[in-house]
Amino acid sequence: MSFAPVSEQLAYLKKGFAEIIREEDLKERLTQALKVGRPLRVKAGFDPTAPDLHLGHTVLLRKMKHFQDLGHTVIFLIGDMTGLIGDPSGRNITRPPMTRDEIDKNAETYKAQVFRILDPVKTEIRFNSDWLAALNFEGMIRLCSKYTVARILERDDFTKRLKENSPISVHELLYPLAQGYDSVMLECDVELGGTDQKFNLLVGRELQRDSGQAPQIVATTPLLEGTDGVEKMSKSKNNYIGITEPPKVMFRKVMGISDSLMWRYWELLTDLPVASINELKQREPMAVKMELAAHVVADFHSAAEAKQAQDDFNREVRQGAEPSDIETVEYGAPGDIRMPQMLLATGLAPTRSEAERLLKSGAVEINSSRHSTMVFQASAGIYTLRVGKKWKKIVIA
Amino acid sequence: MSFAPVSEQLAYLKKGFAEIIREEDLKERLTQALKVGRPLRVKAGFDPTAPDLHLGHTVLLRKMKHFQDLGHTVIFLIGDMTGLIGDPSGRNITRPPMTRDEIDKNAETYKAQVFRILDPVKTEIRFNSDWLAALNFEGMIRLCSKYTVARILERDDFTKRLKENSPISVHELLYPLAQGYDSVMLECDVELGGTDQKFNLLVGRELQRDSGQAPQIVATTPLLEGTDGVEKMSKSKNNYIGITEPPKVMFRKVMGISDSLMWRYWELLTDLPVASINELKQREPMAVKMELAAHVVADFHSAAEAKQAQDDFNREVRQGAEPSDIETVEYGAPGDIRMPQMLLATGLAPTRSEAERLLKSGAVEINSSRHSTMVFQASAGIYTLRVGKKWKKIVIA
Repeated sequence: MSFAPVSEQLAYLKKGFAEIIREEDLKERLTQALKVGRPLRVKAGFDPTAPDLHLGHTVLLRKMKHFQDLGHTVIFLIGDMTGLIGDPSGRNITRPPMTRDEIDKNAETYKAQVFRILDPVKTEIRFNSDWLAALNFEGMIRLCSKYTVARILERDDFTKRLKENSPISVHELLYPLAQGYDSVMLECDVELGGTDQKFNLLVGRELQRDSGQAPQIVATTPLLEGTDGVEKMSKSKNNYIGITEPPKVMFRKVMGISDSLMWRYWELLTDLPVASINELKQREPMAVKMELAAHVVADFHSAAEAKQAQDDFNREVRQGAEPSDIETVEYGAPGDIRMPQMLLATGLAPTRSEAERLLKSGAVEINSSRHSTMVFQASAGIYTLRVGKKWKKIVIA
Repeated sequence: MSFAPVSEQLAYLKKGFAEIIREEDLKERLTQALKVGRPLRVKAGFDPTAPDLHLGHTVLLRKMKHFQDLGHTVIFLIGDMTGLIGDPSGRNITRPPMTRDEIDKNAETYKAQVFRILDPVKTEIRFNSDWLAALNFEGMIRLCSKYTVARILERDDFTKRLKENSPISVHELLYPLAQGYDSVMLECDVELGGTDQKFNLLVGRELQRDSGQAPQIVATTPLLEGTDGVEKMSKSKNNYIGITEPPKVMFRKVMGISDSLMWRYWELLTDLPVASINELKQREPMAVKMELAAHVVADFHSAAEAKQAQDDFNREVRQGAEPSDIETVEYGAPGDIRMPQMLLATGLAPTRSEAERLLKSGAVEINSSRHSTMVFQASAGIYTLRVGKKWKKIVIA
């Protein structure tokens, strides 16, 4: 196995990490690996719950990919042991234990999604139940003896909960230790995770040291801001771009972000080196954003679909042309149609009074002609309606 | 199975406990047991280390016996799981894991000693490795989820160590939970332990409640003062009476305690009901103390040996007569014997100057005649030496 020069690898890997503990160690580990032709073992852990990934998740996956791009081995670790247990605190009755079948199904869904970024051939998919299920009382005691209560309670969320007198169950202390034990069992060189995982990642370093292994390098990825540019990207905030969303939706969502957020997305959501991104900054922002949107769509769909999405966007949004995929609905028989009622029923207006306002203000077009009265005398046929950026075809028959 | 009336049982059981949590519960449990003819299951846990028991340990064993006296089942639980692990913190290099053989040997030594008090037929001897060895990661997580970190850190010694910033390893939190789990597995009605075990015993109540069992009644025994009447009895303080010590030594040690400590010993080291002890308080203390000493010797040896020890004590100590078991040592050839040197060599004096002082003060007898000079002209024969309460026969040949 041969690798690129260390300085070149390091430059590529560094991009987009919030923190590397420590860069010198990573450099040294890469140097050793290069010397003996051994790929590094790079782990990241994932929940066994049903995944529905958005771009926020891909920041970490992309860093995994970068290690793969350089020839290293990536371990996609599914933390199924906790899923098999469920939530044992008994407080959360909505999280019963999962069956092996459910977890395996979730693993398949994961694969379908993450292999849009990762190379399946260079990815080891592992389940931590492989070794945790076999860990007995003696093993647990030995594991737990490696760490003091005071240190584990230093974790940010534990400190906070202790201060607030909100209960921490003893089993919660065991999870960071189990995660560190995973690193020992997998003999990881590097572990990746979000910045909120930093504490748990560091536990692995100590357990490895204790087991006579060189402590893993820990590298954390920042949390990606959502399309609003303010909050962390998440489904519940509705500021997300899902990786299985249609090309057209994805493209438009990217086009809707601010120019400053665009540079963050270039850094965290593409493989472009920093130098190339800096060159883009000399160009006209709207064009560069189109390029970013095309990049993102191509990553999760294809170059052809990216091209199509871009063309659609240009025609529909920038030139106001009729979209190619307008929904068609049937709407009653020929005769007098009450416009506010129809706009409401077809979703072109949110309320009847808003529909009336839109009609009066001249925002409603039927077959490309403005229509501002409350009644439309329709004969049988298909009519194309437009209200601002919303389109609908109605069938009168 | 038939039992004595509850009020009678309760009166006998209450004696000598520091605390019962709670007496009403014990009463109710005894009532139920009586109703269905089921003996209570009464546990006490012991270390797997080599036992060398003194009277301080028998306070707990005697309360176990009292339950047996009333027909209940006593579980002598050997906490061998921790012994099999050793001290995993790595701080105490003097405590390596024990082998199964060593633990079994210690168990035999335990039996030889505790069956001087407990009835072997009514005693279940159990090892907690039976169920702890089989406890896997999932079981541990479930167990640990039952208890919060804050509550477990309320244990006195944990609170103290946290305050002092002296480290507590995470595995130490698991031991109280494991002890409580023992109670669940053994379906205990009652758990006994020293007052310093109170916290751990209470954990069992909660885990049982959580498992749908009635929580065990917890009863703690006080720590017995040593022969000095001040410190807790312990080998290291040299204020102990070992249960394998010879009858004569035991008898004399009991006779050496204060009158007030005697009543404490009557309470904690005999089966006598409180009413009978109160009657003894009307009698002459020295005679009552002799009776206590005879009681204690009879418990660990036999009635005959107790009688012999009492006779010896009367003759030797109270009447100053020659003991029946003086040690005989050979000491040189006929001729001039230097007395200070001889007293030192035979252990009758601690130092040469003290030997000289004893001779001068007239405290030394040879064959019942005072000898106060520094030289003794000895012909061949056996001489009986006495210095205060110490006796020796020396052989000159």
